[in-house]
Amino acid sequence: MPSIFTRIVLGVIPCHKVAEDDRFLAFLDIDPLREGHTLVIPKIEVDKFFDLPADVLADIMPFAQGVASKIKRTIACDRVGVCVIGLEVPHAHVHLIPISSMRDMDFNRPKLKLSQEELAGIAERIRTA
Amino acid sequence: MPSIFTRIVLGVIPCHKVAEDDRFLAFLDIDPLREGHTLVIPKIEVDKFFDLPADVLADIMPFAQGVASKIKRTIACDRVGVCVIGLEVPHAHVHLIPISSMRDMDFNRPKLKLSQEELAGIAERIRTA
Repeated sequence: MPSIFTRIVLGVIPCHKVAEDDRFLAFLDIDPLREGHTLVIPKIEVDKFFDLPADVLADIMPFAQGVASKIKRTIACDRVGVCVIGLEVPHAHVHLIPISSMRDMDFNRPKLKLSQEELAGIAERIRTA
Repeated sequence: MPSIFTRIVLGVIPCHKVAEDDRFLAFLDIDPLREGHTLVIPKIEVDKFFDLPADVLADIMPFAQGVASKIKRTIACDRVGVCVIGLEVPHAHVHLIPISSMRDMDFNRPKLKLSQEELAGIAERIRTA
């Protein structure tokens, strides 16, 4: 069974896409810590981030840099934080979170509840930033 | 005034070194969330991670991959998590944290209190893993 993220890559499950190239996809986390909380994934399905092939590991942060730049232009924040945990979905993914304080990266606090319409609007703003 | 991390790179301030090459340095966080909590820094002093030059951004994760592999062989954990926050020291740095649960990456909980001798022992074990 392909991971939920592979099914998103394949278009079987929809997402609020922010950016894409031939090897990477960026889309909004549907349980965001903050508006603009985005996931960057490699299209290949590998569970652990540090098990990714060297060329994918080398290219994922430059791809994320472009995404982070769009997030920063869209969402008021000091900077864009990065987090790789990966205990829940066995497909390596990088959280990009607009942050102004440590609290913005606290995964233990309640997630925002945003409607599909709100998420679609945020994705559109980031995509076109 | 150079950042505390630049002073570590220059050897003005000591550290418990884990790995080094011409552009990157890895050393133990002295306020660790878990044993083996390591910081990876570029030797060039840039505040924000995503303001790093593209070649540094491209090479930092492959460097971190080698460090994470040594941490994984040394400290019992499910995987090595990654976090970039950067609100405290204005010199881009990547936290590598051996994790088995979300709690292991909670920056709001109290840090471990380890002696210099304990840190030196952990660094030695990781370095030679």
